[in-house]
Amino acid sequence: MRAITLLTDFGTADYFGGAMKGVILSINPQAVIVDITHEVPAQEVAAGAFTLLAAYNTFPAGTIHVAVVDPGVGSTRRPIVVSAGEHLFVGPDNGIFSYIYDRNPSFEAFHITATQYFRQPVSNTFHGRDIFAPVAAVLSTGIEPSALGPRISDPVRLLKSAGPHIIHIDRFGNLITNITRDTFPDGASLGVNGVTIRAVRRFYADEGDEPFLIWGSAGFLEIAANCRSAAEFLNVKRGDPIEIN
Amino acid sequence: MRAITLLTDFGTADYFGGAMKGVILSINPQAVIVDITHEVPAQEVAAGAFTLLAAYNTFPAGTIHVAVVDPGVGSTRRPIVVSAGEHLFVGPDNGIFSYIYDRNPSFEAFHITATQYFRQPVSNTFHGRDIFAPVAAVLSTGIEPSALGPRISDPVRLLKSAGPHIIHIDRFGNLITNITRDTFPDGASLGVNGVTIRAVRRFYADEGDEPFLIWGSAGFLEIAANCRSAAEFLNVKRGDPIEIN
Amino acid sequence: MRAITLLTDFGTADYFGGAMKGVILSINPQAVIVDITHEVPAQEVAAGAFTLLAAYNTFPAGTIHVAVVDPGVGSTRRPIVVSAGEHLFVGPDNGIFSYIYDRNPSFEAFHITATQYFRQPVSNTFHGRDIFAPVAAVLSTGIEPSALGPRISDPVRLLKSAGPHIIHIDRFGNLITNITRDTFPDGASLGVNGVTIRAVRRFYADEGDEPFLIWGSAGFLEIAANCRSAAEFLNVKRGDPIEIN
Repeated sequence: MRAITLLTDFGTADYFGGAMKGVILSINPQAVIVDITHEVPAQEVAAGAFTLLAAYNTFPAGTIHVAVVDPGVGSTRRPIVVSAGEHLFVGPDNGIFSYIYDRNPSFEAFHITATQYFRQPVSNTFHGRDIFAPVAAVLSTGIEPSALGPRISDPVRLLKSAGPHIIHIDRFGNLITNITRDTFPDGASLGVNGVTIRAVRRFYADEGDEPFLIWGSAGFLEIAANCRSAAEFLNVKRGDPIEIN
Repeated sequence: MRAITLLTDFGTADYFGGAMKGVILSINPQAVIVDITHEVPAQEVAAGAFTLLAAYNTFPAGTIHVAVVDPGVGSTRRPIVVSAGEHLFVGPDNGIFSYIYDRNPSFEAFHITATQYFRQPVSNTFHGRDIFAPVAAVLSTGIEPSALGPRISDPVRLLKSAGPHIIHIDRFGNLITNITRDTFPDGASLGVNGVTIRAVRRFYADEGDEPFLIWGSAGFLEIAANCRSAAEFLNVKRGDPIEIN
Repeated sequence: MRAITLLTDFGTADYFGGAMKGVILSINPQAVIVDITHEVPAQEVAAGAFTLLAAYNTFPAGTIHVAVVDPGVGSTRRPIVVSAGEHLFVGPDNGIFSYIYDRNPSFEAFHITATQYFRQPVSNTFHGRDIFAPVAAVLSTGIEPSALGPRISDPVRLLKSAGPHIIHIDRFGNLITNITRDTFPDGASLGVNGVTIRAVRRFYADEGDEPFLIWGSAGFLEIAANCRSAAEFLNVKRGDPIEIN
């Protein structure tokens, strides 16, 4: 029994996520389907890439992750399946698996051309239902990724940022940066929108209301504030640059 | 193993959906429960009817769909179970299955009177938990719909609209109309709030920022705009009329 | 097969709930995981306690309920497991299980000290993933609560309110009070923000637009209004006091 996770920007108010699950269960009634989220900011591929990175390796080896943040749906961008670190990934070739490639350099990617597995007729607007869900279901029945199409060596990657920046803001207003332990010298501070932040704390329940640094559970340096939104306090948004001093 | 889907206007912030799942698992611990959505606009039966139509037939034959958008809960409106197109439907008799009847003219509907299957005591406010969830669970164990009460020939249907109109606005601001291919002449255009829209496109990634027409994945004509909300651009809301010219 | 429910204030837009499910499935691939809600108001322990109370006993005996509304994460507050009324509860010792204790006076609580079951390394910020999810998964495989650490007799309880008040406002704007049938004399009325409410109705579809009283499905007295938000009409918020007259 292999789990199938779903990560999309479809929201949960429409029928989109439900339709993907229906397609999967129609092909594999035994499938265990788990939502990671359907609330990636609309068409924000980089935000989806971060969320997928933060969640995927809590799942068992063999899990199939479907990620559909797909502003190019219906155009010529390729549908792909990626095998990396004992997990499988299904989605559009638009960079959403960039962090997966970075963490698993020996990954293999395949262009999905085996249209016999698609839901017919394939719409121009909803490949989540018509291509990605049925392909994930087929993979969960034991089909190999290499049976879905030719291997490719040039999957699309997100542009590397020119430097440290905010890659995500979570529900609590915490700022997740792309800074990892190997890029942050001991004793360094961050400059964010004119404010210098130096204190590194170990948990959120500390005293004081100044923003502070904390190593987040996904391995990135975060900027937080007790009982309020660091994003609002610092007046920043996703993508804003940060200085390491 | 028969899947049970849930579609409600209960939202996901309260205990309502969780309580329905608990009741189902208490009766059939093997049930596979799938959320379609719990965010139908509050008490908007027609919006729920559309979403159910768009999702239900992606699921395997035998699936049981529970739909609870129920402004008349606690009054005398009937609880019903409907057998249509190899699927079962459970919910209030208030028109929420109208599109199911239209697409499956040989449907059968039954008034649920077998109170021995209800959760006791039956509250006046939460039939989702006390009537519809336990009935769905009982059906998933193999009880026939005809065992739940007498067949009825007069289920409530939504009033047919006087003409073409907007039946749903999705997360991306796309406008879903009630126009199907057999009611839209080749080369026709739509008039929406004083704006004429003629271009029919095949996908969302086209150039330009004018609103355009697109055949949506549910079989209805949609009005969309690239990278922005057509609903905001045209300043329209659900229920607004459309002209076919 | 024992179900595991999740109730948190993590929201559904981030990877938090998904990561908890991944950890659970990594330990017990057969686990049936059910979301109660992830939208408890951020860090509002009392609101989470109410929602858990309203949902838990719809689930089968043996269900494991994980509740993580945890403003003290990373501090010295204890992780606990509670056995009460044939259900198990896993979460922080901050009062979130107060109503469970009230309804099940013979409950047993244990301080979770068996760190061998934790996900390593344990972060300071996400005990939902690193402590509570793996402990719930281990319990679902048959480990006894008493194997997780020493029994405790002093779990934290929410302060008893000085009197009747609003403990929750649901999606429809209905006000849930802490008033139960044994504390509300026949013929009594409620005073809320200067307005006296006397009418007790049996369902929401009644005539008239004045707010009215209704016994809610969780056993508490609620204040509702037809087709509109009682919270907006009365201009009240969670925690506001009520008079019984």
